[in-house]
Amino acid sequence: MAGPTPAHVAIDRIPGGVTTPLGFRTAAIACGIKASGLDLALLVADAPASAAALFTTNLVKAAPVLLSQQHLRSSRGVARAIVVNSGCANACTGEQGLAVAQASAAEVARLLECRSQEVLVASTGVIGVALDIEKLRRGLARLVPELRDDRHHDAALAIMTTDRGPKECAVRVTLPGGTFLVGGMAKGAGMIAPNMATMLAFVTTDVRVPSSVLREALTDAARTTFNAITVDGDTSTNDTLFVLASGASGQEVREVGDPTYPLFLEGLREVCRALALEIVRGAEGATKVVSLEVSGAPSDEDARTVARVVANSPLVKTAVHGGDPNWGRLLAAMGRAGVPFDPDRSRVAIGHVVMFDRGVPFDDRAQEAAAHLAGAEISVQLDLGGPGSGRATLYTCDLSAEYVRINADYRT
Amino acid sequence: MAGPTPAHVAIDRIPGGVTTPLGFRTAAIACGIKASGLDLALLVADAPASAAALFTTNLVKAAPVLLSQQHLRSSRGVARAIVVNSGCANACTGEQGLAVAQASAAEVARLLECRSQEVLVASTGVIGVALDIEKLRRGLARLVPELRDDRHHDAALAIMTTDRGPKECAVRVTLPGGTFLVGGMAKGAGMIAPNMATMLAFVTTDVRVPSSVLREALTDAARTTFNAITVDGDTSTNDTLFVLASGASGQEVREVGDPTYPLFLEGLREVCRALALEIVRGAEGATKVVSLEVSGAPSDEDARTVARVVANSPLVKTAVHGGDPNWGRLLAAMGRAGVPFDPDRSRVAIGHVVMFDRGVPFDDRAQEAAAHLAGAEISVQLDLGGPGSGRATLYTCDLSAEYVRINADYRT
Repeated sequence: MAGPTPAHVAIDRIPGGVTTPLGFRTAAIACGIKASGLDLALLVADAPASAAALFTTNLVKAAPVLLSQQHLRSSRGVARAIVVNSGCANACTGEQGLAVAQASAAEVARLLECRSQEVLVASTGVIGVALDIEKLRRGLARLVPELRDDRHHDAALAIMTTDRGPKECAVRVTLPGGTFLVGGMAKGAGMIAPNMATMLAFVTTDVRVPSSVLREALTDAARTTFNAITVDGDTSTNDTLFVLASGASGQEVREVGDPTYPLFLEGLREVCRALALEIVRGAEGATKVVSLEVSGAPSDEDARTVARVVANSPLVKTAVHGGDPNWGRLLAAMGRAGVPFDPDRSRVAIGHVVMFDRGVPFDDRAQEAAAHLAGAEISVQLDLGGPGSGRATLYTCDLSAEYVRINADYRT
Repeated sequence: MAGPTPAHVAIDRIPGGVTTPLGFRTAAIACGIKASGLDLALLVADAPASAAALFTTNLVKAAPVLLSQQHLRSSRGVARAIVVNSGCANACTGEQGLAVAQASAAEVARLLECRSQEVLVASTGVIGVALDIEKLRRGLARLVPELRDDRHHDAALAIMTTDRGPKECAVRVTLPGGTFLVGGMAKGAGMIAPNMATMLAFVTTDVRVPSSVLREALTDAARTTFNAITVDGDTSTNDTLFVLASGASGQEVREVGDPTYPLFLEGLREVCRALALEIVRGAEGATKVVSLEVSGAPSDEDARTVARVVANSPLVKTAVHGGDPNWGRLLAAMGRAGVPFDPDRSRVAIGHVVMFDRGVPFDDRAQEAAAHLAGAEISVQLDLGGPGSGRATLYTCDLSAEYVRINADYRT
């Protein structure tokens, strides 16, 4: 591939969020959907932006998901704004819920003087409770005059539910002929599983890029980031990953074959990776982040299947929580994933300490592995021993009593 | 079907366990595999008995599972004894583990003067730790003189690991021409999932029945009992359900077409159901038993898939634990099971209180549903709304902070 040489390019993390890229403004307020705190945010592009999104694969889709899918189709990938509330998921709310989502988009369109289909919608919070359109209307009227290009942190706070804190990041991509920026924010703390989860993420960039190319890059970036994390295997009705591209930097990616495309993709991936790992790190009750590598599988898809089963095993997650190098539970979880392999050719390592190798356990290394598990960043390697060289990496967290407490009491 | 009329037959629960049916003796001792307490039991049939078993579907099978499978094949379904230890699963222990299992069967054969292939073996406990054959040999020598026909309770105690208490039951089947008995014991507290789990169960009967018919009845009985329970979705390397038939009652079931077969099957199922429900009731950290009925699925298998995903959802299980009628989590879990259905035709009921019906939530009934959830026996009905009338019932429990504590500290 011809392109800029490494000497001229760089991808650097910088402080910031969704209003760090040029051409975006945001504001957030407390409009009374939550009992207290910021619960409504509006992200606006100064001019029509290219837009793409990935949505939950759950069969039960919330009203904002159904509406945003419809709007992206009818606008052919152009958006001016995203309105997002926390405290109420507007899911399983039937025709009425869809009407509320439509009315909120229409209200934003009226206030910004754009078309309704250029407004995207997201909600997160309790399922099955009606979203109050009057609260939204009053809130939106107060929000629009407050829109600023430095309010990214307020927006990141407003989208939180049980999150321990806001999740934001930004990167600067330096090209030979200039720079462009990618920024993002996310929420999500439980119900996180591959293929989208109870997770909302909003990514902005000031590169100019057609929505078809934006969509392709987003799908690629999500594969190893947002779609490679799991907290509890539960996927939500509301998961959405949005990306808007303003073009305000003057830099452009015309097509996938462009020399700048790989750099754009890498910048986008870096923002997605940082936000996805923040979600795992901040997961409900989590005290440890686990990077789980599976190799030697018949295919990459098989490796993902094994990784998912192991990552979601309550016995594996509680062992990690307890700092117990219980490789037997890892092997037992591998064995029930439905992917064929020979246990007598497989290998289990915790923090690169091989605990089980081709039928032979090495329990004398338990202390060394336990020392690794005492840390907050855990790595586990599972080799199925072939045949095949399929591999996958998933990120997950431990399962704590705190997770149970949070989720047993969420509504009450 | 021609057969005894209901007036002449009865299936009654009676106190008892594995030595309640005629022709069986057992004994249990502490041989030092566990730090303290009974950890070795021997169940012996006075004469060669018909035998059948179901084993874990996990790809990783422990040495006792591999050996018992082999022995059942080579003996063509005849057994004299089952030796079982707790405290060590003898799993992932390679060639050496298999040699220990073989040596223990050989030792029992020597002591009882039978063939080695007529001895079945089971182990439960920590994975990946070597089982000490010398402890077993010394223990077995002490056990054999202790065999009695009334020691079923000791055996039920000896097979426990993290179980809260022993699990036993017995039934008397009354036919026009006489009676026969079925008895059983089980252990299992976590790592329980359909298609066998970390669960050992031993069922005896004094009916005379060929092993092929015994196997068919066992498979049928397990389908709606042991294979319809799940605690955490984890299946184990050691799961085994054994059944031995002594024929000592004088009653006989020759083939599946016999008029007595349905009664035998029902007696067997009753013992299996009672033991399986005891496992769920006594599951690690469990405070509630949940009966989960799924209907309106494309097929029974699809209904089972949906039930399994919902039953294993940490968010569903924690909501039940918290007494929260969070039907949204139920619907969200249904939606990610991969079985097609229309949420706008589906229905969710908690304790027969309909909370969501064809797109419409009924949150005003939350108090009524919460009152049901405050009990210890929970029932949940999920109707996918067709097309199709596939149905399945699974039994599971809630997920508590206590489960996490038990499993985070199991080895240490």
